[in-house]
Amino acid sequence: MKVLVIHGPNLNLLGSRESDIYGKRTLEDINGMLNSLADELSAELSIKQSNHEGEIVDIIQNAKGFDAIIINPAAYTHTSVAIRDAIAAVDVPAIELHLSNINSREEFRHKSLIAPVAHGQISGFGYNSYLLALRAAVSIVNEKNRGS
Amino acid sequence: MKVLVIHGPNLNLLGSRESDIYGKRTLEDINGMLNSLADELSAELSIKQSNHEGEIVDIIQNAKGFDAIIINPAAYTHTSVAIRDAIAAVDVPAIELHLSNINSREEFRHKSLIAPVAHGQISGFGYNSYLLALRAAVSIVNEKNRGS
Amino acid sequence: MKVLVIHGPNLNLLGSRESDIYGKRTLEDINGMLNSLADELSAELSIKQSNHEGEIVDIIQNAKGFDAIIINPAAYTHTSVAIRDAIAAVDVPAIELHLSNINSREEFRHKSLIAPVAHGQISGFGYNSYLLALRAAVSIVNEKNRGS
Amino acid sequence: MKVLVIHGPNLNLLGSRESDIYGKRTLEDINGMLNSLADELSAELSIKQSNHEGEIVDIIQNAKGFDAIIINPAAYTHTSVAIRDAIAAVDVPAIELHLSNINSREEFRHKSLIAPVAHGQISGFGYNSYLLALRAAVSIVNEKNRGS
Amino acid sequence: MKVLVIHGPNLNLLGSRESDIYGKRTLEDINGMLNSLADELSAELSIKQSNHEGEIVDIIQNAKGFDAIIINPAAYTHTSVAIRDAIAAVDVPAIELHLSNINSREEFRHKSLIAPVAHGQISGFGYNSYLLALRAAVSIVNEKNRGS
Amino acid sequence: MKVLVIHGPNLNLLGSRESDIYGKRTLEDINGMLNSLADELSAELSIKQSNHEGEIVDIIQNAKGFDAIIINPAAYTHTSVAIRDAIAAVDVPAIELHLSNINSREEFRHKSLIAPVAHGQISGFGYNSYLLALRAAVSIVNEKNRGS
Amino acid sequence: MKVLVIHGPNLNLLGSRESDIYGKRTLEDINGMLNSLADELSAELSIKQSNHEGEIVDIIQNAKGFDAIIINPAAYTHTSVAIRDAIAAVDVPAIELHLSNINSREEFRHKSLIAPVAHGQISGFGYNSYLLALRAAVSIVNEKNRGS
Amino acid sequence: MKVLVIHGPNLNLLGSRESDIYGKRTLEDINGMLNSLADELSAELSIKQSNHEGEIVDIIQNAKGFDAIIINPAAYTHTSVAIRDAIAAVDVPAIELHLSNINSREEFRHKSLIAPVAHGQISGFGYNSYLLALRAAVSIVNEKNRGS
Amino acid sequence: MKVLVIHGPNLNLLGSRESDIYGKRTLEDINGMLNSLADELSAELSIKQSNHEGEIVDIIQNAKGFDAIIINPAAYTHTSVAIRDAIAAVDVPAIELHLSNINSREEFRHKSLIAPVAHGQISGFGYNSYLLALRAAVSIVNEKNRGS
Amino acid sequence: MKVLVIHGPNLNLLGSRESDIYGKRTLEDINGMLNSLADELSAELSIKQSNHEGEIVDIIQNAKGFDAIIINPAAYTHTSVAIRDAIAAVDVPAIELHLSNINSREEFRHKSLIAPVAHGQISGFGYNSYLLALRAAVSIVNEKNRGS
Amino acid sequence: MKVLVIHGPNLNLLGSRESDIYGKRTLEDINGMLNSLADELSAELSIKQSNHEGEIVDIIQNAKGFDAIIINPAAYTHTSVAIRDAIAAVDVPAIELHLSNINSREEFRHKSLIAPVAHGQISGFGYNSYLLALRAAVSIVNEKNRGS
Amino acid sequence: MKVLVIHGPNLNLLGSRESDIYGKRTLEDINGMLNSLADELSAELSIKQSNHEGEIVDIIQNAKGFDAIIINPAAYTHTSVAIRDAIAAVDVPAIELHLSNINSREEFRHKSLIAPVAHGQISGFGYNSYLLALRAAVSIVNEKNRGS
Repeated sequence: MKVLVIHGPNLNLLGSRESDIYGKRTLEDINGMLNSLADELSAELSIKQSNHEGEIVDIIQNAKGFDAIIINPAAYTHTSVAIRDAIAAVDVPAIELHLSNINSREEFRHKSLIAPVAHGQISGFGYNSYLLALRAAVSIVNEKNRGS
Repeated sequence: MKVLVIHGPNLNLLGSRESDIYGKRTLEDINGMLNSLADELSAELSIKQSNHEGEIVDIIQNAKGFDAIIINPAAYTHTSVAIRDAIAAVDVPAIELHLSNINSREEFRHKSLIAPVAHGQISGFGYNSYLLALRAAVSIVNEKNRGS
Repeated sequence: MKVLVIHGPNLNLLGSRESDIYGKRTLEDINGMLNSLADELSAELSIKQSNHEGEIVDIIQNAKGFDAIIINPAAYTHTSVAIRDAIAAVDVPAIELHLSNINSREEFRHKSLIAPVAHGQISGFGYNSYLLALRAAVSIVNEKNRGS
Repeated sequence: MKVLVIHGPNLNLLGSRESDIYGKRTLEDINGMLNSLADELSAELSIKQSNHEGEIVDIIQNAKGFDAIIINPAAYTHTSVAIRDAIAAVDVPAIELHLSNINSREEFRHKSLIAPVAHGQISGFGYNSYLLALRAAVSIVNEKNRGS
Repeated sequence: MKVLVIHGPNLNLLGSRESDIYGKRTLEDINGMLNSLADELSAELSIKQSNHEGEIVDIIQNAKGFDAIIINPAAYTHTSVAIRDAIAAVDVPAIELHLSNINSREEFRHKSLIAPVAHGQISGFGYNSYLLALRAAVSIVNEKNRGS
Repeated sequence: MKVLVIHGPNLNLLGSRESDIYGKRTLEDINGMLNSLADELSAELSIKQSNHEGEIVDIIQNAKGFDAIIINPAAYTHTSVAIRDAIAAVDVPAIELHLSNINSREEFRHKSLIAPVAHGQISGFGYNSYLLALRAAVSIVNEKNRGS
Repeated sequence: MKVLVIHGPNLNLLGSRESDIYGKRTLEDINGMLNSLADELSAELSIKQSNHEGEIVDIIQNAKGFDAIIINPAAYTHTSVAIRDAIAAVDVPAIELHLSNINSREEFRHKSLIAPVAHGQISGFGYNSYLLALRAAVSIVNEKNRGS
Repeated sequence: MKVLVIHGPNLNLLGSRESDIYGKRTLEDINGMLNSLADELSAELSIKQSNHEGEIVDIIQNAKGFDAIIINPAAYTHTSVAIRDAIAAVDVPAIELHLSNINSREEFRHKSLIAPVAHGQISGFGYNSYLLALRAAVSIVNEKNRGS
Repeated sequence: MKVLVIHGPNLNLLGSRESDIYGKRTLEDINGMLNSLADELSAELSIKQSNHEGEIVDIIQNAKGFDAIIINPAAYTHTSVAIRDAIAAVDVPAIELHLSNINSREEFRHKSLIAPVAHGQISGFGYNSYLLALRAAVSIVNEKNRGS
Repeated sequence: MKVLVIHGPNLNLLGSRESDIYGKRTLEDINGMLNSLADELSAELSIKQSNHEGEIVDIIQNAKGFDAIIINPAAYTHTSVAIRDAIAAVDVPAIELHLSNINSREEFRHKSLIAPVAHGQISGFGYNSYLLALRAAVSIVNEKNRGS
Repeated sequence: MKVLVIHGPNLNLLGSRESDIYGKRTLEDINGMLNSLADELSAELSIKQSNHEGEIVDIIQNAKGFDAIIINPAAYTHTSVAIRDAIAAVDVPAIELHLSNINSREEFRHKSLIAPVAHGQISGFGYNSYLLALRAAVSIVNEKNRGS
Repeated sequence: MKVLVIHGPNLNLLGSRESDIYGKRTLEDINGMLNSLADELSAELSIKQSNHEGEIVDIIQNAKGFDAIIINPAAYTHTSVAIRDAIAAVDVPAIELHLSNINSREEFRHKSLIAPVAHGQISGFGYNSYLLALRAAVSIVNEKNRGS
């Protein structure tokens, strides 16, 4: 089972700044925890980070071989129709996650353009949002396989 | 570790109807799976279902002894300030979950009154939303205990 | 043919107050007229009134044996997603009715949350709204039976 | 007792097209059923159809001798202030009806400009909406006569 | 000096109905007063009434020989882009008038589609709105002639 | 003089929680102060608390023998048309009060559905809001009696 | 017959600036024309100009002895509830006028707070708006006198 | 192959007025160019113009024998639900076109009621919009024929 | 204890006009009652009335020596950011009051710019609103003194 | 004559996915058809595709030598002010096209930020939208040349 | 070079209160710094402060002899069309400034009525906003002089 | 003192196009003026331009060594949450500037996503906006240093 993990814009700064909102763990910490859990769940991860909307579109378009996508679209959650269209275009279930509870932040962060085309959303659990998303991804794939 | 699980209005009908949206599992099936996972995670569950907004407020007010609340507010997600206020009033972290992806349904289901006072949200993974919420609850409590 | 009649909140006050808007007939008068017409149309009625949203949800959930529901949701017309979901969940056609013409009253009464999931609406004919709704219910059931 | 029946724009196409929304009966079938019921209720009908907003205004202005108007304004429901003003200007109670449940169709069909000046509305019962409207009209007139 | 006077939909009913809003004078009374004032001001009038949007468009298109248009668009004030476009297309100054003060009536009557392309507006003075509009028209034409 | 006091949802938690917003006094403290003031003003109080919308509707419907109602609708202020309709239906003046200044809290708390049918509002004075409301109630009743 | 003429803020600059929008005539020119027409119509004028909202409120409050008010509220048209309330409070009919067609200018100039409490409006005729308003005022007063 | 061409309101004025927006060619010029291109593409045209909404509805209803409709709804683009319903009712593909770029004009011209039921739209190319629409119509029909 | 009382625009007309909305008492009557109650409560009043927004700002800025402000901002409630800023700037608690229930009047009167910076609001009790506000002011000051 | 063709984000996936919305032809197929038609019309094409907003801005800025731009902005239609500004900045007419009828898709796809600065739009004709756009481009250039 | 500096309402309180938002410097401090900089830049200042909207209008109308206006409209930024019109009417460039970043404060402070008629805006730099505005004013005047 | 200057999309075209809005100076001219002023103020500049949102995010993330950022986000002002988040994430004060007065241009340019996280804004002074921004930056840094 192969899972693609996409970290959106500004997530490369995790841990070093605004730790009151996003927590103290760096992106590397999180990637480490994700890989450990993946091992436990017999999944293989490919992890990318980009600050460029177009690059994220490219990454999603090349997700063909993957069983699921885990994406934290960060700022592009609220502005990118292109990422939405890319997710809708590829035939891989995508799970949207957020570190913070976006519903208790600024008004413009309440609306997600990605949500309607994602399989599901997880938000507000800090680094655990990633781990829960990975578990969710594995469940979806297992269920699909069982179904076939 | 004690966790309170609250099923909101119409969830007692699960499995028997509209299975294309909500899945084929009954509420009992889900409760069974929740209890199994709780055993595995060394948590103790108390499970309630109610179609009455006021009753759900009462249940939340009596959550004092619990370490976390898992709530699927269903229809009251979008209309109940009273449940929101009850969650804000008690000092127990609450996790909001939904079986379906509420963002790809009718417009009026996109806005959650509960979300800003919940610790986090999980939606769109069918019965797995409950299991992920239980894992999230356990993580939050463990982290808090570790912190203290 | 069995028809469930549900009177929403404050309708137990009918006749005694605000007769300029709602007419002079009491709920009992209306129930009497409904029963007479039901006899004439060979239908059997079960009539409930409740001021509680949750109770109305319960009543609708237990409508399984009925061929049709006639509901005057009154104030809950504009605020209850839970009643809407209950109607959508049970497989019984529901007819929404209002004594007064809700479109010529306050702005917030113009929008019905129930209407999109109801089979049809009747409003503005005073107690006759109930009688027309019963006729409509009988027609729907007859048509369905003829179709099968 | 004389009742004026007005069929709005595109209703002359009934039965031949879009029968999934509007049913299989033609306008003639409906007129036949209306006349039968009128006989039964001792009412006399005058039936008009027009695709022209101005013509419908003319027809309503000439409704003086009638006891009631039954109108399916179709597309003009949502756009015609002129028909609204005509109904408000003549002293004849008007009943607005729709074949389909306009509240479960496109957003712009939810708002009726006619509703606030109509006596009442009936929608969603297919050809039965016309028959119920005729019964409602007869009740209103009888009640008024009884009152005088 | 030639002035075209256009009475919009339902104005043929003036005087006989809703006299509390529109006054007791009939359209003929008003036309008589307009003709008297026209004589006094050495203007020649051509007066039309129509309930049909398309007919009013036709009338405006044929206004070439006239020095000014006086129009009470009535219900079409709020819905007709076609009349607006016709006024914008012909090179004759148009004065919009209303018998009643449209700003103290229903919300949907506050917005005029005609106003931005009219030379000016007069509203709220009953039949005097017409007489003031005629004076305004004569002033505009005189001023223009003096200017040339 | 008899006055009915209604405490809405979550007010039973007063004093024990969120004392920064709602103050340190418990509901019992407030009821005690109300009874003292009632004695002083020669009024008799009946005090109820409920978390259930429907129950509050029931309580209001049974307010017939009372001279005035003092109600803190709390969360239902913003969502309950049913309580609004109940207040409008009974012929007893109702005074709406809030402990906190609802206008300086979240946007959705600025709009009160109850306010248009209440006699007046008092908000922002903590437990004093109740005492002022009782004084207001007594004044209204005295004035009415003096008038008759 | 006594008529009070009120010129709102910035109108003292008339003629000297922005003559493309407001015309070349100064406020004195307009006052001269108004006085001439007043003589012709046997009316007596009192003319005021102020840039101060509060002063205009004072002026309107002191309008008791007058038969009519002619007011060009200029910028205060769109922002002053105080002037609106003053007009509503005094028992003298007020005519609102504008030099330019406010409906073809910026969006925020389309809405008049004064309009709903004014007797009527005249806009778009340059200095003629004042003369037409004076004629309208005289008609209203004459009609009222004839009526008494 | 037979194509119906419908010119909406005010288009009979083309060329003589507002040539800065709509170009210098008359409707006859355009019809001539359309007929030439139709000959080249082996299509047969039937061309109508009307200022009346109801007449355009009638024309569309009678489009049965045609393979495609080309319609410039002009002002009715933004206000006519009746034309929309007529297009939806007949089984002939309709192409909506506009001479000018409606998106760079007034706000109210940006929304087309016709667009959702049209096959496609072309706007902004002056008289060429018609020629492109004809080519589009021929392509659609050819494709359909090839498909069958 | 010193309390500043500010009467906003048009309140000098109280009693003489629109007594159906504002009551029959004049501003002097109200000031008399306020002074009597102040004596009883051992408070000293300074009372001002102004129709000028700027003057009211000046008055508030000079409130330094006072323990509380009672203000009926009348029309400026809905339009004055300047008065809001003045209240926020001085360190004296302000109580906003209204004679009428502003929530059951025109839509634009529902929103108060002053409310978020006021300590509390009282509205709908006629002249009693002032007396209740004075009591509220005294309570606030006493509580603060007791606290220190 | 040189024409620049720009394919926006996700269009590189054409043909392989979501063929029910976008058709079965690949981007290469479309480019082939465009080149054939270009030969026929004596035009020379330069064709680009990019998923990156910034890259598309760069491409447009370098369009100096071209006579026209044909652009399918896809997802960036609704979100990119930068592409809009680039089109407005270069002095080359741009034609916006869409494969599908964007007006019958999700609400957020109805609004185009590009449209107001484009010369014209074509949408809904599948691959034919590109061919029609090329024809439109050639016409515009020819017309301009003829004019000079 | 002569520059008029206008301080809007409540700015006379600067320094003494709410220093967390507006800084610790008094208006006199700021005026001192402005005069020093003016000396350096060879400009002459005239400085006014007023809490009265009408007075500020008067001051602006009398700005004829000045080369530029520097205005901090404070609260009137968001409510005064009269000040906007005065600025638009006089032929002197006006620079709008704010001490605080108005975009990160309450929603209603984000919109400036003055901005569209000002030459430019500066906000968020505390007392430096004034100094930057003075520099901006001098640049504008110098540029204009150089141009002539 | 080191200052980072960021020019957003399409600013590389400055001077060559749309000089009526943006002025005749090229980006190089502006950079030259900025460097001269920087020398004078003893600041060191690093200047970047990019049309790519992601690149601008990268540039801001690497601003660690700088004392201040001067950014003209151009088109991304209104659409980029990613740039906003990057500014909020780095601990360097950012000054937002615009050449033109964005408040007197299209509606969608009035709202800045960057403004709430910027230290301050300057707009409308052409190339001088950059020079004023540099002065503002130097003041902020000096003040901070003085404070420490």
